[in-house]
Amino acid sequence: MIFLSLILACAAAAATGILFPPGAWYDGLRKPSFTPPRWVFPVAWTTLYLLIAWAGARLAVLPGAGLAMGLWAAQVALNTLWTPVFFGAHRTGAAMAVIALLWLVVTALVVQAFGLDIWTGVMLLPYLGWLTLASALNFSIWQNNR
Amino acid sequence: MIFLSLILACAAAAATGILFPPGAWYDGLRKPSFTPPRWVFPVAWTTLYLLIAWAGARLAVLPGAGLAMGLWAAQVALNTLWTPVFFGAHRTGAAMAVIALLWLVVTALVVQAFGLDIWTGVMLLPYLGWLTLASALNFSIWQNNR
Repeated sequence: MIFLSLILACAAAAATGILFPPGAWYDGLRKPSFTPPRWVFPVAWTTLYLLIAWAGARLAVLPGAGLAMGLWAAQVALNTLWTPVFFGAHRTGAAMAVIALLWLVVTALVVQAFGLDIWTGVMLLPYLGWLTLASALNFSIWQNNR
Repeated sequence: MIFLSLILACAAAAATGILFPPGAWYDGLRKPSFTPPRWVFPVAWTTLYLLIAWAGARLAVLPGAGLAMGLWAAQVALNTLWTPVFFGAHRTGAAMAVIALLWLVVTALVVQAFGLDIWTGVMLLPYLGWLTLASALNFSIWQNNR
């Protein structure tokens, strides 16, 4: 049930990708050379959301995981917020602020997770890696499409 | 720190109200007689978000609160999703599905909270009450503005 509730939280974040698709606006942006092809994003996010929900379910049953679960909740809310801001409102600067905050929250979550259970910390590293790439991409698009 | 992380999660949800304001589209909708005046919404949500974060911080330190924290995370993600779907994409039917799911998640959270700590359950009742009104409002707007 814990895993299902966290999958539902991730599904809310994932739904933004369907409700606010990249579309013609995204195709017309000046993007950096390291931009992954579009098909990579849903594949990466599906994998990451499963890992994030699994990691959260492992943390939720550990004693002293209150802060980790608070950070888990904060990351899923910021993750859900990013897509409508970027792809819905086309506010690339505001989206940059959201993803920078998200990166900090996930870094704090990874630190907490490593303190509680090493393997759960490892499970969250791909998320942090992907967010680093996504932040660089957001920054580049924001700077080059004024 | 737990309370701050949950306030941050609620701030992500609250930011949608600023980034996706009601605007002329909302003013032009056919709304039911029980629609509160516009100034009520930010006042109600500010109060509710403080109560929700406080309730979450109380739950987070209790043993056996894993499912409650999972539901807390699910509600904040669905809450963050609703505003861009309704006020951003103007998808009142999809927003109805989101708020119905949110209502169910918050009901489950209230049940969990009452089982862990009665006062925390009581603190979450205004949220459930407001969501009931908001769901009725969303349903009416969806049905009367095809």
